[in-house]
Amino acid sequence: MRYVSYLDSDQTPCWGVVTDSNDIVSSTQLGLVAPTLKKAIASGELASPNRLNLDSTPTLRLDEVQLQPVIPDFGAMYCTGLNYSDHARESGKEAPSAPRIFVRLQNSLVGHDQSIIAPTVSEHFDYEGELAVVIGRSGRHIPEEEALAHVFGYTCFMDGSVRDWQKITTTLGKNFEHSGALGPAIMPASHVPDVQALTLTTRLNGRVVQQANTRDMIFSVAQLISFVSTMITLQPGDIIATGTPDGVGQSRNPPLWLKIGDDISVTVDGLGTLANRIDA
Amino acid sequence: MRYVSYLDSDQTPCWGVVTDSNDIVSSTQLGLVAPTLKKAIASGELASPNRLNLDSTPTLRLDEVQLQPVIPDFGAMYCTGLNYSDHARESGKEAPSAPRIFVRLQNSLVGHDQSIIAPTVSEHFDYEGELAVVIGRSGRHIPEEEALAHVFGYTCFMDGSVRDWQKITTTLGKNFEHSGALGPAIMPASHVPDVQALTLTTRLNGRVVQQANTRDMIFSVAQLISFVSTMITLQPGDIIATGTPDGVGQSRNPPLWLKIGDDISVTVDGLGTLANRIDA
Repeated sequence: MRYVSYLDSDQTPCWGVVTDSNDIVSSTQLGLVAPTLKKAIASGELASPNRLNLDSTPTLRLDEVQLQPVIPDFGAMYCTGLNYSDHARESGKEAPSAPRIFVRLQNSLVGHDQSIIAPTVSEHFDYEGELAVVIGRSGRHIPEEEALAHVFGYTCFMDGSVRDWQKITTTLGKNFEHSGALGPAIMPASHVPDVQALTLTTRLNGRVVQQANTRDMIFSVAQLISFVSTMITLQPGDIIATGTPDGVGQSRNPPLWLKIGDDISVTVDGLGTLANRIDA
Repeated sequence: MRYVSYLDSDQTPCWGVVTDSNDIVSSTQLGLVAPTLKKAIASGELASPNRLNLDSTPTLRLDEVQLQPVIPDFGAMYCTGLNYSDHARESGKEAPSAPRIFVRLQNSLVGHDQSIIAPTVSEHFDYEGELAVVIGRSGRHIPEEEALAHVFGYTCFMDGSVRDWQKITTTLGKNFEHSGALGPAIMPASHVPDVQALTLTTRLNGRVVQQANTRDMIFSVAQLISFVSTMITLQPGDIIATGTPDGVGQSRNPPLWLKIGDDISVTVDGLGTLANRIDA
């Protein structure tokens, strides 16, 4: 079972649980009153996913709804640059001695199966497949050894990057409207035995362009949570993206840029596949 | 008249108008139903400030309420690095050829007269006084010559900066919890004849440490609005900070860092003074 945020046929924001057979049991069917997945996480009512009553007859299929970025109203999304050595090397950079955190804004993202929009002002639009962490419990100055207890779950992230604008500032290259994607769904942390042993695969038009294991992160998920919480209080529904491995388009010879009509996907084993088409 | 967001004695978020005699006429007294200033701006009901009915008897004084950052629930705050030549020079950087945009998160800010919190993990906490712009009307790909029509108003900004963390990434140095301030109030754009002819003064414990005129910005307010809207749709209530002039603490010899108990203030002529104490 996984959690999703979606729009129903009236474009009303909804959330619910996806069953293993890809049916959706809505929050109303679950008997939960929180209007958003973020508020349900904050209220603690999803703390024991195995106790949710999934007996209601699902009325929607996963492929019938318009999925949103898993927490569309997140307070903050912290992203990590250069968190795999091979990617730092291919980028011509040294492996960082501290996490290179930047942020993405809500409107820079779309959900699974929605169109990622190629910028009109750049030809240098690149993919970056990543694992993303959804915070479940707030905290400041969280010790590394307690950090994973603050995780609600995990999902996949396409950190679409406009490389020439990224040279001005990272923020600019990473926040073009609808240039990235987050989803399809949140796998509860209790269903992920070891987040540092997951295979991550990015495919462009079906061809594998990135493949790595999360054990190769320079800073682990626990270290990233602890580090960000030194700066600011992490809140339920906040997202931490963990960085991309090697194989991005700009480091290839010749460079491999995203084009309109391309299909891009990120698969993290056990979490599902986030798939999007590039559109104008 | 200016607009403020504040907490009443029950800590309920409110908003209203500050009269020239520093009384507050609340949104309820104005007969307006929008629950937040952001929603009132988005609804357009503040488009003609001179038509607001300020006849109600004010029941609160400005100095009796707990002011919040002027739009506490902003969707995005875009900040500009190195937008005055003298500051770029004192920072040992070349004047940029494009605006160096980064973002600040809501929880990195406090309102006027609230405590700015010095980080526990750094001694290198610095001030940056700035002019900030509040967006009134949404837009994407806004031409420079139409940009000022998208402004709702202007306010003052203290861009508290943790310089050693800023060397990791700008985002980290600029987003420590409650390390900056925004306020005290929003002056409607119609009351600001020329936003590029305002004197900006930062005082530390009463001593002038920064003084400049907004005519010396490298990128004007109109250029910044147009530039950011190339990347993403600007929304009502979004904030654009316009950069700080020379005189920051890190460029002095010896450096002048903020200490607990310091009083820091930013005055922009015609907009008011944003004053805060540094606390632990």
